[in-house]
Amino acid sequence: MSDISIAIASHSGYGHTRQLAAAVADGARSVPGTQVHQVDVALLGDADWELLDGADAIIFGSPTYMGTASGAFHAFAEATSKRWMTRAWSDKLAAGFTNSGSMSGDKMHTLQYFALLAAQHGMLWVSLGLLPGWNTTTSGPEDDNRLGFYLGAGAQSFNDTAAVHDADLSTARHLGRRVAEQTHRAGLVTREAA
Amino acid sequence: MSDISIAIASHSGYGHTRQLAAAVADGARSVPGTQVHQVDVALLGDADWELLDGADAIIFGSPTYMGTASGAFHAFAEATSKRWMTRAWSDKLAAGFTNSGSMSGDKMHTLQYFALLAAQHGMLWVSLGLLPGWNTTTSGPEDDNRLGFYLGAGAQSFNDTAAVHDADLSTARHLGRRVAEQTHRAGLVTREAA
Amino acid sequence: MSDISIAIASHSGYGHTRQLAAAVADGARSVPGTQVHQVDVALLGDADWELLDGADAIIFGSPTYMGTASGAFHAFAEATSKRWMTRAWSDKLAAGFTNSGSMSGDKMHTLQYFALLAAQHGMLWVSLGLLPGWNTTTSGPEDDNRLGFYLGAGAQSFNDTAAVHDADLSTARHLGRRVAEQTHRAGLVTREAA
Amino acid sequence: MSDISIAIASHSGYGHTRQLAAAVADGARSVPGTQVHQVDVALLGDADWELLDGADAIIFGSPTYMGTASGAFHAFAEATSKRWMTRAWSDKLAAGFTNSGSMSGDKMHTLQYFALLAAQHGMLWVSLGLLPGWNTTTSGPEDDNRLGFYLGAGAQSFNDTAAVHDADLSTARHLGRRVAEQTHRAGLVTREAA
Repeated sequence: MSDISIAIASHSGYGHTRQLAAAVADGARSVPGTQVHQVDVALLGDADWELLDGADAIIFGSPTYMGTASGAFHAFAEATSKRWMTRAWSDKLAAGFTNSGSMSGDKMHTLQYFALLAAQHGMLWVSLGLLPGWNTTTSGPEDDNRLGFYLGAGAQSFNDTAAVHDADLSTARHLGRRVAEQTHRAGLVTREAA
Repeated sequence: MSDISIAIASHSGYGHTRQLAAAVADGARSVPGTQVHQVDVALLGDADWELLDGADAIIFGSPTYMGTASGAFHAFAEATSKRWMTRAWSDKLAAGFTNSGSMSGDKMHTLQYFALLAAQHGMLWVSLGLLPGWNTTTSGPEDDNRLGFYLGAGAQSFNDTAAVHDADLSTARHLGRRVAEQTHRAGLVTREAA
Repeated sequence: MSDISIAIASHSGYGHTRQLAAAVADGARSVPGTQVHQVDVALLGDADWELLDGADAIIFGSPTYMGTASGAFHAFAEATSKRWMTRAWSDKLAAGFTNSGSMSGDKMHTLQYFALLAAQHGMLWVSLGLLPGWNTTTSGPEDDNRLGFYLGAGAQSFNDTAAVHDADLSTARHLGRRVAEQTHRAGLVTREAA
Repeated sequence: MSDISIAIASHSGYGHTRQLAAAVADGARSVPGTQVHQVDVALLGDADWELLDGADAIIFGSPTYMGTASGAFHAFAEATSKRWMTRAWSDKLAAGFTNSGSMSGDKMHTLQYFALLAAQHGMLWVSLGLLPGWNTTTSGPEDDNRLGFYLGAGAQSFNDTAAVHDADLSTARHLGRRVAEQTHRAGLVTREAA
């Protein structure tokens, strides 16, 4: 049986999102039979587009700036319109993660956009799949999904430090693992169809 | 091999959404090995909740009133919070359809809400999977996805007639068929996990 | 010169949103020449509808349950369709606030819905108007807008306590004051037009 | 009494949005005492930023590509972060318009983003303020707001022609006029505060 292939298509402005992307990759790789590829959407070459085209699942990642994904991510999203026209990414699985300086920070809008981009391509959206980790006085910010997101993984990193919160990295690993598991469940339909 | 089970959980105010739900059901039933159950979310009994709990996929449907699903649908969504707490619907597939009197009519917000409700439950969202049918001078309103929705199926029915547009019914059948196909692809994980 | 009138149209499930509504009212009342009316949208009588119709601004409030406003709020929103048809609320100012157990908790979707409901009625949306209070290592959760919302005021109250965070109450007071100030700026056009 | 100043900050890919921007400008200019400035956000110079900073209202415009504003618009939105930090655009009025090839085409998400960008800046959002023009069998596509949008003006132009629908141009003129009227109502607070 063939390995499945997961591509992480992300942009990082100051490095926080890059750390999250690495954690998503670690989580995905922890599932046996999973190939993981990192693609920087601000530096896309032909080989990167081929990795995206050949993937069984694509995980989108970006900081949230001014209430949505970065300009670099949006330039990439616009450039996917050729694949949209040919339905090249149809039926792939998709998921997403984002980071900003404050707890909410309108990150949800970025996740909504990722889910909408996936829908435009005819993909299936894999939600985070976690209850909130910190919504009672007996829980705390060390728990997975401490911020209470559902469409994907949301992280909060203070603007004046390079550090990413341990719980957010753990949540990102969970997302990568979950996407790999769901992609194994769904099987290699992408490449069978080609 | 067991049949898969798809539940259509919808509310209809004046009958247009009911016609769409029937078309979604027809599309799903057209895929061999698929059991389809219709649930009226405004009239939920214990047997209906059991059908929802036992389904491999749930398709949400509602008219769009004042920019979102109907009050009856929202009462249902709030009542699903017990299932949310126990993750009873986790990993099921989900999809959605909606109707309103005008072309856009903020129907997209209703579809966004359906996708968000699915994410809260840890479900996987199945997009419509169609290019727009009417976006050139050589296409026309008789084509599937004539309105150009992506997250799910959007229909437009004039407020002063009971009729639903043929292309919208056809698009609804497509959605039902696609959800059935994707559910067969993903397999019976829901009941295996129980 | 006449006083302006601000109506707070909200629903509270367990009391947290009620405390926020009171804080919004306090903030609005702190602006001279401002009449403030509280309306419980789950218990609407004719007198309440008259207060809403006569207001220069309406501030929507609800807990966020399952990713959107409560079922009770949505029943109210659907019931406003008569005012939609007659444009009775056109050009009024509008704003919103919401509460949930976790930091994000998809509260942003509730605020998006409030803004969309206002747009359906032809109202003007008053944003929160604050930078995030807690997005650096030198700031903290005691600052206004500690969660980083923009469309309106977002509060986080643990599910197992009746307490509402002081910073969230202060943020709610800010919202009330801001809506009153902007309503004075815009003037009594609602009643002049009647 | 001073004139008010309205800036239209838009990007056009193939010319349809440019025609809409001109119609918005015409509508705004039809209100006495209104200066209107067109700014191409893909070609921003210092003088353009000064026009935006000095405006009493900013109207955002972009095509909808892949479910959101164009990459060029998003690069502009990200570049406004300095103004966000200094609250330079706080309390200005804001509004938006967008175009795509199909009826819905996820244009609503673009309008949601424009409203969110305005909220991040502490602006007030002016909705379209029209009932849908084409939602009964006795109305037709020649009526204003034929597509049924509320947050702003949505237009539909076929991909294979340069033409923009007369009703969409008329709707755009309505939006410009409405923003000018509401800006006169709110007064010159922006420049008084400077």
